[in-house]
Amino acid sequence: MSSCAAAPDHPPRPVRFGILGCASIARKLARAMLLAPGVAVAAVGSRSEEKARLFAADTGLDAAAGATARLHGSYEALLDDPDVDIVYLPLPTSLHVQWATAAAARGKHLLLEKPTALCAADLDAILAACDAAGVQFMDSTMWMHHPRTAKMREIVDDKDAIGDIKVINSVFSFRADEDFLQNDIRVKPDLDALGALGDIGWYCIRAILWAVDYVLPRTVIALRDPVKNRAGVLLACGATLYWEDGKTATFSCSFLTNLTMDITLVGTNGTLHVTDFVIPYEEKSAKFSVASKSNFAKLHIGWDPLPSKHVVTTDLPQEALMVQELARLVKNIRDAGGKPEGKWPAITRKTQVVLDAVKASIDKGSEPVEIAR
Amino acid sequence: MSSCAAAPDHPPRPVRFGILGCASIARKLARAMLLAPGVAVAAVGSRSEEKARLFAADTGLDAAAGATARLHGSYEALLDDPDVDIVYLPLPTSLHVQWATAAAARGKHLLLEKPTALCAADLDAILAACDAAGVQFMDSTMWMHHPRTAKMREIVDDKDAIGDIKVINSVFSFRADEDFLQNDIRVKPDLDALGALGDIGWYCIRAILWAVDYVLPRTVIALRDPVKNRAGVLLACGATLYWEDGKTATFSCSFLTNLTMDITLVGTNGTLHVTDFVIPYEEKSAKFSVASKSNFAKLHIGWDPLPSKHVVTTDLPQEALMVQELARLVKNIRDAGGKPEGKWPAITRKTQVVLDAVKASIDKGSEPVEIAR
Repeated sequence: MSSCAAAPDHPPRPVRFGILGCASIARKLARAMLLAPGVAVAAVGSRSEEKARLFAADTGLDAAAGATARLHGSYEALLDDPDVDIVYLPLPTSLHVQWATAAAARGKHLLLEKPTALCAADLDAILAACDAAGVQFMDSTMWMHHPRTAKMREIVDDKDAIGDIKVINSVFSFRADEDFLQNDIRVKPDLDALGALGDIGWYCIRAILWAVDYVLPRTVIALRDPVKNRAGVLLACGATLYWEDGKTATFSCSFLTNLTMDITLVGTNGTLHVTDFVIPYEEKSAKFSVASKSNFAKLHIGWDPLPSKHVVTTDLPQEALMVQELARLVKNIRDAGGKPEGKWPAITRKTQVVLDAVKASIDKGSEPVEIAR
Repeated sequence: MSSCAAAPDHPPRPVRFGILGCASIARKLARAMLLAPGVAVAAVGSRSEEKARLFAADTGLDAAAGATARLHGSYEALLDDPDVDIVYLPLPTSLHVQWATAAAARGKHLLLEKPTALCAADLDAILAACDAAGVQFMDSTMWMHHPRTAKMREIVDDKDAIGDIKVINSVFSFRADEDFLQNDIRVKPDLDALGALGDIGWYCIRAILWAVDYVLPRTVIALRDPVKNRAGVLLACGATLYWEDGKTATFSCSFLTNLTMDITLVGTNGTLHVTDFVIPYEEKSAKFSVASKSNFAKLHIGWDPLPSKHVVTTDLPQEALMVQELARLVKNIRDAGGKPEGKWPAITRKTQVVLDAVKASIDKGSEPVEIAR
């Protein structure tokens, strides 16, 4: 019997995640890992085994088909688990450098929650560790992996449809409750010191960079009057970004206003609107609208043509598609001798560089900050 | 026979417009005057009677039921026409002070195209003339009169639905063709020196003021890198407006990008989106959407509740409703001894004051400009 004939008897070895820390967002990711084909959760690590057990029970990881996730009572133990291919790291931002570099040093690939670091220099330490270890890095910006995003990309890249983008507006806000504003890690200077800018401004910055195909702006000027809590953590802020070629982007992010997730792109030929870009209104179907070569109708009564609605469906939620894409890259490295995909760390780094510039401009009272190339 | 019993034999005397100048936009207004009940067009005045005749033929004013519009070969003759109650003035902005004050001095009520003046001081001369003559002033900002705007007002005023507005974004652009960019009065420094800021930025500023119930911002800072033509007329620009209470508004206007007409309002409790605020996609039906008290669904999968779509229908187009509203005010003055409604000139003046501040900031290279109270 040839070895070719025998191969189908062995199912393909899944790519196995280890979840480092039982943050609230990790529950969503655990579900995604259970949904994504070819992916397994090998282990959950928390500061106590009891917390890991509760998390596994709550997310169904203790009863997953095939294999039950191993439980670790320390982060170190999870990193030492040989069955873990990829570490998903949803810890507070201030802990990212320590644990992300430790994971990379143990040869683990990395799915890192955003904001990825407190500053670009910290991120660079993480990326250097990944690079040295030859492991894949990806940040956990889920909407990048929705098929709607791919469809929007296609339209934005169609110069006939949108033309040169000149104006970009993005808003991401949600109304945090009193408990969040008092106790959440995202308002604590020692945990997530970037506050709303890191937690949700991150998405606006990423959206803006995505729209311009990741060309860094030249100048960043924060909006005035950012809102901070008593500890100095940003609760609401924004900025305007300028490019050499005349593109302008403005974003606002806030923990203090109603849930809003907008990208508006205005190009020479067309306009794109999406109002739920980070988390679609519904999981399996997502919309956006495009107006292209819009004219006034005769006598300026109405528009001609009307904007078109696009609906993109997906069987898997965007976070499962993210997990699946990362698993594909890791499998290629693990099983086929492939190299890490450089696109993902590059995109992360640009996001962090712009975030740094926004923070610097805020700290300087909305003075312009130039971004070096 | 009592005079009371005789009254029904005399149909109510219509309010009669005189159209001063045959601008392209005047064709839309002529149609509106024909559509609005209780309104008539008494006369058309142009620099030549022939132009007035062509305009009347083209718009159907020469065959209107009841009365044919009189034709005047000069603006003065139109102003001297005793059958004209209201002068509609769509001349280039640089001519507004001269002809608007002349109309008021002859006791004519005034419907003035936007931008109403090159600066607030010029507008003040016009408003003073109207005030002295006891005539009604209204600018021709049509969308203010759409029933959709009233419905949006109702929702914005509902503090439970929207709460305190914190962020406002508005965009108005259209892609002008080469002929426009070379020859239109809106790119000529001696005719409409405010260019895109006056022609379409006007609407963004009005929308922003409308959203905040006409409280003037404290500080205005123009976006950098405005685009001007060789003669120095603005083709694209924008600004950010700041209020004492932390509200921030950003607008962009441009002759160089695809037709776009957005207002986005983000409040503590809710978010409103409208993407065709100046001229609805369709004449008889207009939409907007409101998300109120939006939460993430469980595990941050989707939204709960979903935003709601609002559809507002209208039999008469917004410009006919504008004409009708002005006629109602004028009828009250003319036939019932009423006083001019102060709301309209007050709104116009605030719009012009903000427009002045934006222009000043542009002229100062995006330095902040404070608005005096």
